[in-house]
Amino acid sequence: MGKVITGGTMSLDGYIAGPNESGFDLLFQWYGNGDVEIPTASPNVPPLRLSAASAELLQGEWGNTGALVVGRHLYDMTNAWGGRHPMGVTVVVLTHRLPEDRPVADENFVFVTEGIGAAVAKAQEIAGDKDVVVNGGQMARQCLEAGLLDEIGIELVPVVLGSGTPLFADLAAVPAQFDGPVKVVEGAGVTHLRYRVRK
Amino acid sequence: MGKVITGGTMSLDGYIAGPNESGFDLLFQWYGNGDVEIPTASPNVPPLRLSAASAELLQGEWGNTGALVVGRHLYDMTNAWGGRHPMGVTVVVLTHRLPEDRPVADENFVFVTEGIGAAVAKAQEIAGDKDVVVNGGQMARQCLEAGLLDEIGIELVPVVLGSGTPLFADLAAVPAQFDGPVKVVEGAGVTHLRYRVRK
Repeated sequence: MGKVITGGTMSLDGYIAGPNESGFDLLFQWYGNGDVEIPTASPNVPPLRLSAASAELLQGEWGNTGALVVGRHLYDMTNAWGGRHPMGVTVVVLTHRLPEDRPVADENFVFVTEGIGAAVAKAQEIAGDKDVVVNGGQMARQCLEAGLLDEIGIELVPVVLGSGTPLFADLAAVPAQFDGPVKVVEGAGVTHLRYRVRK
Repeated sequence: MGKVITGGTMSLDGYIAGPNESGFDLLFQWYGNGDVEIPTASPNVPPLRLSAASAELLQGEWGNTGALVVGRHLYDMTNAWGGRHPMGVTVVVLTHRLPEDRPVADENFVFVTEGIGAAVAKAQEIAGDKDVVVNGGQMARQCLEAGLLDEIGIELVPVVLGSGTPLFADLAAVPAQFDGPVKVVEGAGVTHLRYRVRK
């Protein structure tokens, strides 16, 4: 079984989104500031253009990712990425209500209503030997609190948003300590940091 | 004239202190997790024991620091570091009320009541060609908003505090963007990141 990983592109002050879902243009500048083109599987998301260092790291990690776990909010906000996630893997959507406009499970999306444990278990079943990546925010917090998380991957960008959605939103078990960084990669305008969760 | 720099040891979620001045034991673990001993000038602060990488960076930066600017709160909280700051340089204290128990200016402390601009100017006068380091939190925020800041140095540690004092507390001009990192140094359990302020 692979690892369970969370993380995301994060501001210097710890936010993966600014107030009222703002700041994504600033957070994701590094998706477009390089020369290496990375195609995405989503019809709505243009190819990334990354620095060589970021591209090498991301291609390795994407290639080792077998499934994603996201919340219903992100699924709705992105309009289901136009039908397929940019990474081209199955997305397990944790939700309180099943969708009416699509099957409960196909190769693109699987809907789970039984909580974070069931969502991660389903994603691991789909991922096989590969890793499961859990979205930041409430999903990441639930996953950490349930003891399901192995690693954290932060793409740290030099912007201060002031407020917004923390990587581990509303974490009750604070302070929380992690080991590492076990890897540091310098991109262009982004620092990729990988940490291990203490078990 | 040297640069004006702020920063500090910061949690993954962007705090330089936890709630009610907590978390310093976790934030400053890297001050004691290495083999290189760095003496401090404060009678209250024992020598640091840093990893080789952190020690090399810190010794270089301390050697190039000519004066500090802090707020009265930190001065009081540390009990004036026992009379001399660990870095062994003059500390300019921005305060609303002058102290009654010591001179307004000596080689250890200089008290300024006329605001952040006057405090930084006094520190620059003392520092000469060397850099001025401004404490994080409200001092850093005022300095950034006044356009006085050149660089940010973050010692990022893998702990989530959940709440506390942000590096730029109550920053009004958000989002704020910086350039870099212009330097990344991997210590043990700490990542040293240096950014430039956009002018």
